[in-house]
Amino acid sequence: MQAVELIHKKRDGGTLSQEEIAWFVSEYARENIPDYQAAAWLMAIYLRGMSTEETTGLTMAMVRSGEELRVRDFISPVVDKHSTGGVGDKVTLAVAPLVAACGVAVSKMTGRGLGHTGGTIDKLESIAGFRAALSPAEFMRILTTHRIVLASQSGDLAPADGKMYALRDVTATIESIPLIAASIMSKKLAIGASHLLLDVKVGSGAFMKSLDSAWTLAQTMVAIGQLSGLHTVAAITAMEQPLGRTIGNALEMAEAIAVLRGVGPEDIMALCYHEAEELLLMTGAASSRSEAESRVKEAVQSGAAVAKLAEVIAAQGGDARQIEHPHLLPAAPVRSMLNAPRSGYIAAIQTEQMGMASMRLGAGRFKKGDEIDHRTGFILQAKIGDYCGAGDPLVEIHARDDAEAEAIRASLLACYTWSDAPVSAGPLIYDTIRP
Amino acid sequence: MQAVELIHKKRDGGTLSQEEIAWFVSEYARENIPDYQAAAWLMAIYLRGMSTEETTGLTMAMVRSGEELRVRDFISPVVDKHSTGGVGDKVTLAVAPLVAACGVAVSKMTGRGLGHTGGTIDKLESIAGFRAALSPAEFMRILTTHRIVLASQSGDLAPADGKMYALRDVTATIESIPLIAASIMSKKLAIGASHLLLDVKVGSGAFMKSLDSAWTLAQTMVAIGQLSGLHTVAAITAMEQPLGRTIGNALEMAEAIAVLRGVGPEDIMALCYHEAEELLLMTGAASSRSEAESRVKEAVQSGAAVAKLAEVIAAQGGDARQIEHPHLLPAAPVRSMLNAPRSGYIAAIQTEQMGMASMRLGAGRFKKGDEIDHRTGFILQAKIGDYCGAGDPLVEIHARDDAEAEAIRASLLACYTWSDAPVSAGPLIYDTIRP
Repeated sequence: MQAVELIHKKRDGGTLSQEEIAWFVSEYARENIPDYQAAAWLMAIYLRGMSTEETTGLTMAMVRSGEELRVRDFISPVVDKHSTGGVGDKVTLAVAPLVAACGVAVSKMTGRGLGHTGGTIDKLESIAGFRAALSPAEFMRILTTHRIVLASQSGDLAPADGKMYALRDVTATIESIPLIAASIMSKKLAIGASHLLLDVKVGSGAFMKSLDSAWTLAQTMVAIGQLSGLHTVAAITAMEQPLGRTIGNALEMAEAIAVLRGVGPEDIMALCYHEAEELLLMTGAASSRSEAESRVKEAVQSGAAVAKLAEVIAAQGGDARQIEHPHLLPAAPVRSMLNAPRSGYIAAIQTEQMGMASMRLGAGRFKKGDEIDHRTGFILQAKIGDYCGAGDPLVEIHARDDAEAEAIRASLLACYTWSDAPVSAGPLIYDTIRP
Repeated sequence: MQAVELIHKKRDGGTLSQEEIAWFVSEYARENIPDYQAAAWLMAIYLRGMSTEETTGLTMAMVRSGEELRVRDFISPVVDKHSTGGVGDKVTLAVAPLVAACGVAVSKMTGRGLGHTGGTIDKLESIAGFRAALSPAEFMRILTTHRIVLASQSGDLAPADGKMYALRDVTATIESIPLIAASIMSKKLAIGASHLLLDVKVGSGAFMKSLDSAWTLAQTMVAIGQLSGLHTVAAITAMEQPLGRTIGNALEMAEAIAVLRGVGPEDIMALCYHEAEELLLMTGAASSRSEAESRVKEAVQSGAAVAKLAEVIAAQGGDARQIEHPHLLPAAPVRSMLNAPRSGYIAAIQTEQMGMASMRLGAGRFKKGDEIDHRTGFILQAKIGDYCGAGDPLVEIHARDDAEAEAIRASLLACYTWSDAPVSAGPLIYDTIRP
């Protein structure tokens, strides 16, 4: 096989065989195919697309480029959960312990935040002592002992994906549905859970800006799961405004704890409980939606859910007292209120811009390796559809100093669109794709 | 400017500005943009296309990446002639001295053959002592003294094209009309003649297999010429069978000499004289087709045309006696006749396959730098539309040894399609594109 022939074939809109894709990825991972040929191949894929079979082939080839954990060989069922990323998205932080508290094991490996969306690991690292980088042996020990583990992504899993992602980043080939789907699914398949729930976010704060593209991505990933033996369900959910009330690492950690206690904001609680129920249904831990609902409710009300979070935090070296007493979480020295500049209903929030604003307070990373400040961020005082009088509190800014708090006000205000007439927020869950 | 932004823009079908294209090419030539970004950019161009303005911008950017000879500043008018390449294409060898003999200066820089098509320089190098690699000073001295020069391509002209072509070769981005047009035209513009005649070949032996693509390429190059101040005309001509009767370097050299003497095969004479006339008309050296015809006829009949070839050969160190006495040209030790396997009319010739067969006798290069044997090749005894009885001579094979001559017979026979009913060859010249 020759790399140039496979580029040629995809360039002309041909369908690559499983063998051809496996060969290309494996030779690329071994550095026998240079970056410039991979770049041309990726651009041809970007513009010509890939069938579901090709995308699954690409996914499996990336899985085979590295280690496979196969956690389902040790404990089963074992679920995994992945969000395509949004602003204020602390869903995984609540869903994972909630499901584990209901008796279903959760194996979660996840990345750090980059750009406008935060990362679950960054939020967990607000907790003193918490250790996300686990060896495979530690990962397995914590999972089998506590039926939950929350680790950072291992570079030994699907290394071809890491190499290819870095190349895509500098060759304008990120925003391709088959390439995104293969990248996400390869990491999930390398972990090897028995069930996977995907949360595909759509809207002004998500990577997918249209329902159409979110639907295609969800459909593609569910199909990959089906073709590769991983039971996968995808929820398509709204990211038209930040989820819940908080943006920023420690602030979001505290909100996730509130969700586990049943005292969080309504939207985020509804979404977390729905996703937890979905996982109980998928794995057969509950046989009906109403049974799933009551199991989740019980875990929250009994305190089992928040206790499970404290348990896994402690198992990974974190200070569990910060879960029991969230006021012990690190806090920003400056709190400053941004008030509504006018009266009216909030009609829209430019969510990506708001995520970018939080980055400028130190809550996120402009580039890989940037240090982040876990303390900073925003607490929203009003959301889409809410009425504000002029001068009413709009956003509480948590900053490192007065100057940064002051500097962010204008761009924060610019995120809001106002209406004189009442506005209602759209649905939170658009669709659920099942195999 | 960022390379990734320009890749992104072209990927999405946008139009790049002149500044953007100039920046990309110049940064690439200086190695500030890596091959992998250029590869993604080229694939996006391949699949999204380029407007005539963008293509001209790309051409000019490649011209500016190196030296410019500007021959028209020294002698004017001065013509250039380029063929997109075919099998048995010795047209330039005849047209250049013919036009020069008619008093119009000819500045020709040309490449070596690669793949199934031969190169003008390889054919000239059948002549003992001929030197194609000239310094700029030698090039200018020979051109101004003899009004004709036939040199090999200088790497100092449009070096970005050379670098980009090598990358295209390994990333399946060769066959793109804007990229082909810019590559050809950048080398022509860097020489800087006042008039350019392009011969765009179409058919089974050409790079352009369809009239449609040949027409688009011709149109694009004429438009680039117009936008950049080079008077350009493109003839679209047939490459459905080898031109003339010979394939192979010394054999084609001898046939070009026959054309200059008025005793060559009809098809190649008609084409060469037509192109020479076109150049006389373009430059105003003749004011009508009939005047051009009689000037060309006069140059052939008087012996001025062949004398001009001998003159330039001598000026470039070659043995001019081989022009006056072509039997002195190097000859293959083995001549072996392939006979017609059946009676009938020749309906078609797979010309590219025939070119490949000549390569296997040593007449061409599989890869850059391969040594070639100037002596080997074929003399066709019959062409499309001719009737052969079974056992009649079909192709005279000129080989290095009996084994090679024997080994080529089957693939040579496979190039022929036969018909019981009479067949007529198609037209030789399809169209002429003028600005």
